[in-house]
Amino acid sequence: MNYLKNVLLIIITIAFTCPITFAQEDSVMIRTIFDKALNEGKAYEALTELCKDIGGRLSGSQEADQAVIWGKEKLETFGLAPVYLQEVMVPKWTRGEREVAYYTVKGSKKPSDLAVCALGGSVSTGKKGIMAEVVEVKSLTELKELGEDKIKGKIVFYNRPMRATLISTFRAYGGAVGQRVNGAKEASKYGAIAVVVRSMSLKIDNEPHTGVMRYGDAETKIPAAAVSTLGAENLSKALKANPNLKMHLRMTCKNHEDVLSHNVIGEIKGSEYPDKYIVIGAHLDSWDLGEGAHDDGAGIVHVAEAARLLIAAGYQPKHTIRVVFYMNEENGLAGGKKYAEEASNKNEKHLVAIESDSGGFTPRGFGADAPKEFVEMLQGHAALFEDYGLNYFGKGYGGADIGPLKEKMETPLIGYIPDSQRYFDYHHARTDVLEMVNERELAMGAASIAALVYLLDKYEAQ
Amino acid sequence: MNYLKNVLLIIITIAFTCPITFAQEDSVMIRTIFDKALNEGKAYEALTELCKDIGGRLSGSQEADQAVIWGKEKLETFGLAPVYLQEVMVPKWTRGEREVAYYTVKGSKKPSDLAVCALGGSVSTGKKGIMAEVVEVKSLTELKELGEDKIKGKIVFYNRPMRATLISTFRAYGGAVGQRVNGAKEASKYGAIAVVVRSMSLKIDNEPHTGVMRYGDAETKIPAAAVSTLGAENLSKALKANPNLKMHLRMTCKNHEDVLSHNVIGEIKGSEYPDKYIVIGAHLDSWDLGEGAHDDGAGIVHVAEAARLLIAAGYQPKHTIRVVFYMNEENGLAGGKKYAEEASNKNEKHLVAIESDSGGFTPRGFGADAPKEFVEMLQGHAALFEDYGLNYFGKGYGGADIGPLKEKMETPLIGYIPDSQRYFDYHHARTDVLEMVNERELAMGAASIAALVYLLDKYEAQ
Repeated sequence: MNYLKNVLLIIITIAFTCPITFAQEDSVMIRTIFDKALNEGKAYEALTELCKDIGGRLSGSQEADQAVIWGKEKLETFGLAPVYLQEVMVPKWTRGEREVAYYTVKGSKKPSDLAVCALGGSVSTGKKGIMAEVVEVKSLTELKELGEDKIKGKIVFYNRPMRATLISTFRAYGGAVGQRVNGAKEASKYGAIAVVVRSMSLKIDNEPHTGVMRYGDAETKIPAAAVSTLGAENLSKALKANPNLKMHLRMTCKNHEDVLSHNVIGEIKGSEYPDKYIVIGAHLDSWDLGEGAHDDGAGIVHVAEAARLLIAAGYQPKHTIRVVFYMNEENGLAGGKKYAEEASNKNEKHLVAIESDSGGFTPRGFGADAPKEFVEMLQGHAALFEDYGLNYFGKGYGGADIGPLKEKMETPLIGYIPDSQRYFDYHHARTDVLEMVNERELAMGAASIAALVYLLDKYEAQ
Repeated sequence: MNYLKNVLLIIITIAFTCPITFAQEDSVMIRTIFDKALNEGKAYEALTELCKDIGGRLSGSQEADQAVIWGKEKLETFGLAPVYLQEVMVPKWTRGEREVAYYTVKGSKKPSDLAVCALGGSVSTGKKGIMAEVVEVKSLTELKELGEDKIKGKIVFYNRPMRATLISTFRAYGGAVGQRVNGAKEASKYGAIAVVVRSMSLKIDNEPHTGVMRYGDAETKIPAAAVSTLGAENLSKALKANPNLKMHLRMTCKNHEDVLSHNVIGEIKGSEYPDKYIVIGAHLDSWDLGEGAHDDGAGIVHVAEAARLLIAAGYQPKHTIRVVFYMNEENGLAGGKKYAEEASNKNEKHLVAIESDSGGFTPRGFGADAPKEFVEMLQGHAALFEDYGLNYFGKGYGGADIGPLKEKMETPLIGYIPDSQRYFDYHHARTDVLEMVNERELAMGAASIAALVYLLDKYEAQ
């Protein structure tokens, strides 16, 4: 930490003593980066390949393997060298046949379909599926209050919506996702036979949104599904009218043995400090339902294009810029853990790790998960981004994949922040496809990251 | 102007002397407004009606008449009183049959289709259409250089793209739209028999974007069409290979006599100064190709919902809030001119006029077309919007419909500024439909406008 403190002092000193001449040179470089991104950018074309030639790429799938090959070739084409793979064992889970769910009301002939999908990591219901009464709850607390008496043998329906009034939809997600991750584990303690969770989306439509769930120390593993927000609204209404309605759920998903996969790593070697790293990364895996366009294909092409833009702008970094495509963010984080472990074992100096995993929308800024001095250093660069519409530079979340770097080596983390309003409309759903990504918004994200890397490389510690 | 200056002094004094207690009350009110917009907003539902029950509503069309009736009912339902219509004569132009265009290369059997649409106000080609060689130019200057010798008897193809490197796409539009508006008039001077203009869009796709064109003092009125950006790229390439290719264009559009239409006006009466007005407006007409969802259905529901939100939040304005749905912004501005004329004739005091005509995207701020002191007053309110992601408060463009108010009565103008990256993808094209509008982004726009109106009403002059 003493080293880091000295480093930060130097940064701050530089940032405050030489702002004028540097700032002019910097604004020219940043303009060049944005011009190249907007006039002759390659991010959207790369994303098109990833989405349309490969598509959804869940860890352990054939598509994930294809994405690794694609990623390596793409970084090579973009001029990075060397480009290499880092082995990592990842969980493998398969969805099986398309899920089926409906509810029936006594006396009514026609069952009402529910749009559901299995949550990642869930066990199967068995081929015949299950049929049971449903108990609706809004929270884990409510579950506890109901107790075994009211829950045993039933399906627990978690129906707490994301809070629409939070301007950052990521905060709204954070406040609701606990039901999805831990809902099955908790409900199983009271004898529930399955759980159905309202999709993590603020949009009322009929798309179920998958995502990871964990059994943790649960004694009994019960099936867990997501239901579309519209389905959740309908089911809730139906339960008010008929508390004894029965729901059928059928899912044939399955957990397999771990399999070998890879992180993809590419470098632009630093001219002065080749063994000090600035890492920019995103996750190459995605859920299986859509094309993983915003989550996190956008991030992948952001960081690859950011490196390409620096090369195209003729910038020779002092430190080594390392682009990392992490595998398995969605259901295990094995890639992020493995990268940090190896970096730590080799005692590699990581000046900063940046992640893009919030979609390909209009850039709004960067948030740092780092000591106060580092956050202030980041804020010191804000003025250069004003013309490009980035206004937030301050404390923030780094990213899941880079989290282990902070844990292991106290690496300062920076998360790229795009506009968040539309993100959860598509997140983990069938609708997360290329068509929902705007080419300019994507290009501006890549340029923003490239510009930040340029500044950090130039003014960061030696 | 002396009155206005005094007024501004008072505003500035208030803004700087009583910020603390007022600011707390203000932040609570603004939070209430946003909560209501995001939890129980009615903007998206209203836009759905306007887009799906009515659709495109070009001035003088049956749909425009329906929109007037809808608008009056909507403002009444939203609690405004009185709500009334203001008569205005508007131009009427009809598109006729679907336009046809293709080019043929000598020796090649198959003609190549071009996706075109007539520009608003254009004359017809006649039912048989026209066939002629094509001259590509990038600017009006280039046209002049070519002269009659190279242009006479040909179709002029204006192919200057919008500048992708401008972060504000409105600036990029402003730099390219001259070809569309004046291209026919200018080309006719050199004997051109028609013009085809590259669509005003930064996206390369096959959708032609219509928009107004004007003949001005042209002696000969020649047909004017827009070609999709993809069509423009293809035609340009084909011309390089075969400068003598011939293009066929067929349009049966027509200008008619002016017809009677209406502005729709609704009020929330001021409790202290009922005869002083804060105007919030948008235009009710749209082009005919899409549903006029972003242009300017979003603006219409923004301002209607802003008024409703103020009522729902229990705010009793001191000045009269007047919501105006202007007719005929797209091809004449008759509604905006008429409103200003009547306001001027009645010597109505207009404190400020606000317009939303930049789409239903995430709010970024407000720009004022007004004296420096007014701009500074606006900037003084910026801090209250930070939590909602609005960062730009400064000089800017007001709006087309409210422009005449400034001309006639020196009314300070404010334009609502949402994120601009996607706007021209849809603008004036078949793709400007409800599905391209995000409910949260729309709701936040309405809340932003309501919040600003609240602040202006509270701190504005008496």
